[in-house]
Amino acid sequence: MNNMERADIAIIGTGPAGLEAAITATIRNKKVLLLGSRDLSRKLTRAQEIQNYLGFPAVRGEDLAKAFQAHLDQMGIEILEERVSAVYAMGDYFALQAGEQMLEASTVILATGVVQGKPLPGESENLGHGVSYCATCDAALVRGKGVAVVGYSPKEEAEAAFLGEICPEVLYFPMYAGEVSLPDSVTVVKEKVTGLEKRDGQMAVLAGDKAYAAASVFVLRDAVAPGQLVPGLETEGAHVKVNRRMESSLPGLFACGDIVGTPYQYIKAAGEGNIAALSAVGYLEEMKHKA
Amino acid sequence: MNNMERADIAIIGTGPAGLEAAITATIRNKKVLLLGSRDLSRKLTRAQEIQNYLGFPAVRGEDLAKAFQAHLDQMGIEILEERVSAVYAMGDYFALQAGEQMLEASTVILATGVVQGKPLPGESENLGHGVSYCATCDAALVRGKGVAVVGYSPKEEAEAAFLGEICPEVLYFPMYAGEVSLPDSVTVVKEKVTGLEKRDGQMAVLAGDKAYAAASVFVLRDAVAPGQLVPGLETEGAHVKVNRRMESSLPGLFACGDIVGTPYQYIKAAGEGNIAALSAVGYLEEMKHKA
Repeated sequence: MNNMERADIAIIGTGPAGLEAAITATIRNKKVLLLGSRDLSRKLTRAQEIQNYLGFPAVRGEDLAKAFQAHLDQMGIEILEERVSAVYAMGDYFALQAGEQMLEASTVILATGVVQGKPLPGESENLGHGVSYCATCDAALVRGKGVAVVGYSPKEEAEAAFLGEICPEVLYFPMYAGEVSLPDSVTVVKEKVTGLEKRDGQMAVLAGDKAYAAASVFVLRDAVAPGQLVPGLETEGAHVKVNRRMESSLPGLFACGDIVGTPYQYIKAAGEGNIAALSAVGYLEEMKHKA
Repeated sequence: MNNMERADIAIIGTGPAGLEAAITATIRNKKVLLLGSRDLSRKLTRAQEIQNYLGFPAVRGEDLAKAFQAHLDQMGIEILEERVSAVYAMGDYFALQAGEQMLEASTVILATGVVQGKPLPGESENLGHGVSYCATCDAALVRGKGVAVVGYSPKEEAEAAFLGEICPEVLYFPMYAGEVSLPDSVTVVKEKVTGLEKRDGQMAVLAGDKAYAAASVFVLRDAVAPGQLVPGLETEGAHVKVNRRMESSLPGLFACGDIVGTPYQYIKAAGEGNIAALSAVGYLEEMKHKA
């Protein structure tokens, strides 16, 4: 579908929950917008062996991901590879900040997985006021300034490299082990970040024994905490609160998979994706009758 | 496992919910007793094409069932083909009437699917007092008497034929369309049964305009209504009431799949089977600490 028209169902996340939701919603003839990584869930593709996804005995994560991709291909479902940084409930539809685009959908299914670990001290407090989750979206705001990037996976290096092209100073704090490969325009600081602070109208990244100054700090993770992603959404710790129909506290917004709680299992996530999609279909039907 | 020792988890039903529960519980090193049809779910094997079981694009039900069987085989999980006619909560364990055997398990997972349609008028009231769900179990009680069988699927014909060997008169009421193939010892009555009644200490089967007398009536369906299967279990219409952990109102008893409600979908059932198994594992762990 054309991304400019309003989708029936926007699905955020391309793990088993999001994929199953997309397949079921497509079968039910809904206009589906599937947002997430084209490589599917990293948790999935990196799994050495999965023993209990019924129908695939002792399968490697990589092979299960291939079977999922084949299913998407057979149904003609495409993934829009954009990071969604915010979802706003607008009354009778939702607005999604996806990279630099603002997309619209009548319903939303959150399937972004669970955020490992808590936000950094000072992260939530300064969000939108010195802390950002999206380099692409805020590029215009930070052009010509010194910035810091706290990256939780190697794929965030591309974001830092991009910032290196438009900012005079970019500090990159890798929050993972292993090699970091970045152009000279980015300074890599291999110190664990312990918090963020506002100091004299600037941000400070606390790492090791030092405080590193920056106009803006980009905290880049695979998934954003659900309460931060969707203002007003009721959560329980790191999870979205849902009922057995996968309905959240916001009408028209559903959630499924790891984001709604344990057990963190592939088949459980897929099953919930199915329920969420059919609940969204039912909701759209109800709205049609109300209109 | 030996059926005489107490199982950790008895799983009743061999559709996607029961199979996934068995696989997950086996991975968690539990002694599993899987009860149901070796042909797996009839609903599954008869499905022409399933489009939304993630990982199997446009699969025939028969082929999906083969993949499930291969998964069981790979894990060495066997199915005990017995019809469970009652589950009794005994305090710290459950007793299961399975054919003529009485089996024991510390926890039970109900995954028997949903009963299509309501019980017959007079069925629940006379259960155990003229109405029975199990020919094999009550054979000794009806030997030499005249009985009636209300069969909801062709596979019940085998039960009627068996009764024909030990009872002087067997009336068989097929509640399905198509051919009925039975020995001469069984009289087939092609009238729709509308109710059961107690009359002068005998049962009467109401069908067409007539009442057919019988000492006992066997009502044989693929699945028994959950409230009848498990005395004391809280239900909501045809469904077992559960929470998101698939816990029923009886501690140690879990349910999953179609029996806990819509949507009636394979992947949803499998996902719930996974949750039920892990909840049962958690319950067993708790019991161990209490003991």
